[in-house]
Amino acid sequence: MKTSLPLPKHFQAAGIAAGIKQQNVLDMALLYSTVPAVVAGTFTTNKIKAASVKLCMARIEQAESGQAVIINSGNANACTGKQGVLDAAAMAAKTAATLGVREDQVYVCSTGRIGVPLPMPCIEKGIEQAVPHLSEEHGALAAQAIMTTDTRPKTFTETLMVDGCEVRLTALAKGAGMIEPNMATMLAFLLTDAAVEKRALRAALRESVTKSFNRISVDGDMSTNDTVLCFANGVAGNQLLKPGHDQWDAFCALLDRATYALAMMIIGDGEGAKKVVTITVNGAATDEDAERAARAIANSLLVKTSWVLRDANWGRVMDALGYSGADVQESSVDIFYNDAPAVLGGVAADTPEEVLRQAVDSAAFSITVDLHLGIGTATVYSCDCTEEYVKINV
Amino acid sequence: MKTSLPLPKHFQAAGIAAGIKQQNVLDMALLYSTVPAVVAGTFTTNKIKAASVKLCMARIEQAESGQAVIINSGNANACTGKQGVLDAAAMAAKTAATLGVREDQVYVCSTGRIGVPLPMPCIEKGIEQAVPHLSEEHGALAAQAIMTTDTRPKTFTETLMVDGCEVRLTALAKGAGMIEPNMATMLAFLLTDAAVEKRALRAALRESVTKSFNRISVDGDMSTNDTVLCFANGVAGNQLLKPGHDQWDAFCALLDRATYALAMMIIGDGEGAKKVVTITVNGAATDEDAERAARAIANSLLVKTSWVLRDANWGRVMDALGYSGADVQESSVDIFYNDAPAVLGGVAADTPEEVLRQAVDSAAFSITVDLHLGIGTATVYSCDCTEEYVKINV
Repeated sequence: MKTSLPLPKHFQAAGIAAGIKQQNVLDMALLYSTVPAVVAGTFTTNKIKAASVKLCMARIEQAESGQAVIINSGNANACTGKQGVLDAAAMAAKTAATLGVREDQVYVCSTGRIGVPLPMPCIEKGIEQAVPHLSEEHGALAAQAIMTTDTRPKTFTETLMVDGCEVRLTALAKGAGMIEPNMATMLAFLLTDAAVEKRALRAALRESVTKSFNRISVDGDMSTNDTVLCFANGVAGNQLLKPGHDQWDAFCALLDRATYALAMMIIGDGEGAKKVVTITVNGAATDEDAERAARAIANSLLVKTSWVLRDANWGRVMDALGYSGADVQESSVDIFYNDAPAVLGGVAADTPEEVLRQAVDSAAFSITVDLHLGIGTATVYSCDCTEEYVKINV
Repeated sequence: MKTSLPLPKHFQAAGIAAGIKQQNVLDMALLYSTVPAVVAGTFTTNKIKAASVKLCMARIEQAESGQAVIINSGNANACTGKQGVLDAAAMAAKTAATLGVREDQVYVCSTGRIGVPLPMPCIEKGIEQAVPHLSEEHGALAAQAIMTTDTRPKTFTETLMVDGCEVRLTALAKGAGMIEPNMATMLAFLLTDAAVEKRALRAALRESVTKSFNRISVDGDMSTNDTVLCFANGVAGNQLLKPGHDQWDAFCALLDRATYALAMMIIGDGEGAKKVVTITVNGAATDEDAERAARAIANSLLVKTSWVLRDANWGRVMDALGYSGADVQESSVDIFYNDAPAVLGGVAADTPEEVLRQAVDSAAFSITVDLHLGIGTATVYSCDCTEEYVKINV
């Protein structure tokens, strides 16, 4: 069987059914580098963190390297107290022992319902099953196994020539409901065979996540489990990538393409969502104000429901600007749907309503606001809120 | 025809169809005191304010008294620029001229779609129709005429003996969608024949609104038009009510009963809502933290959708606590549904799931959180988010 998701050199993947969800549904993934890799990660800012997040955060602080991440869907192992912490550690230990690697080389992620203890017998049997299932051909199965309410797997792969060596970056993610700026209920894994200096990789990942996963909003909720992990095993043979290397910017751009592509796949798969909307606020007093204003629009339930049908209800956008906390002068606000002005100087522009309706009618459109108060700017990505969203979450 | 809503002495009301919505739908109300009354008001904190709000805020600053408020539904007169300001002023002037009172005695409220200029010919003809329609019997018609997506009018009336005089407080409100803490798209009018000192009335109203209208949440959006106005015409003949009067506390309590009752009617009529949920956070580090935490729960789309069916999904409550910005220690969080503990010390309590489900299954229930970090406390009121909410707003 030819895999649809090529992995970088010396990476293997597994995706199996461990019985955490129902029978015969993929619910456990293992990603593995046969040699130790440099690791970078970013995590949820929610003050209530899942046990797996606590484990990863501690491990990434201490470790120079990592070789594997074991992931289960169907159970978040969050709000599970001391038992949850012990279970996450046991999950890592079992994976390490079965793989024959050091325990501190193994990372853990969980996603699913909060407050229910991990079914450890399933988890342990699942790990025993996953390790022999590891293969360079199984990346796509791993991408399936991490899904929860996702309707489709989300993957990315691309190559880049560095110092005459072919470097590959392959990435997989899950996330649909509960996504807010700040990465809610989102897991993403980036694997590369490039040789990258650890601190440089960590800084580049942080910046890349800020511009992608932290700019998407489905329902404004932030999860306890969000995790992005990046493994770089250096097998490609290039000179160590870091600032100063003439291909450093190209590598960072590749990282950005991966996180942006996955973020767009997540927003496009927002629970019940049919439309992806790019919201840009320009001319704010500060970048922070621009972000506040853009997020208020992106998270407004009234704005998001108005997109479902063909209604450019810009009054709701004005309303959201007004309560966003950003500095706003009503009489200097412009609002555009794609390139068509809906509001100029705080009042309706003379664009025919049909033109605005056509913009909102498409599967992807943009709303651009100019506050004319300064040079602050920000972009966030949102989606419409349909009746299906509510159906999925009741 | 006997009215179902007695008005205080020397107050009259009208509710007529001015043609702002469709033909023959009540869409204009007039409330009138035959003698000048002391006026108090509170207004939206949205930075984008409707023209009527700007007019009321300016008038209340300057005027000692007021005699009338003219209200239209079907059009918010918000984001309508200079024309909107002129239209609101013309609406007040026309009402004053037709009533034969001073222009600065007339207040204006509008509610409906944002960004569309007021249809002034309809408004002016409506005022000419409303004035002769004024009657002590027409309070209930006025309550109907101010409705937008409301499914039922919201009214309150009660009497109190003060200095041997019968004092009446009658109140009417509209509001359903777009309600957030801070009174979004909510209009409320409180009429009393009590004699009340102006500054005392203004302080009492402000405090009463803080505990009622500012504590309800339907969808987290704050409107451009929210207004609460209170008129006290003193016709009852009591000694001037103010701090020190032995019935002052009783009068404030009456005001509180009115605003609380109307707030509960609004949340109970939240667009598509079937359940009213009281959310209390105790033991927070500060009152501000308690409020932040309670509002995060009340506004979480994931929490609100989980209430639709019989699911005490406390994991989503924990998640909302975690991102609320309040100080939270996972291991010291308790959560109760009515009196049944769902979470103790950050992990699931052993209350049978069926007991929690029964709580969530009722039309009114409470969620109480104890953070065990201090003595900060706050209560807010929310409702479930159903598919109907989305249907109403697309």
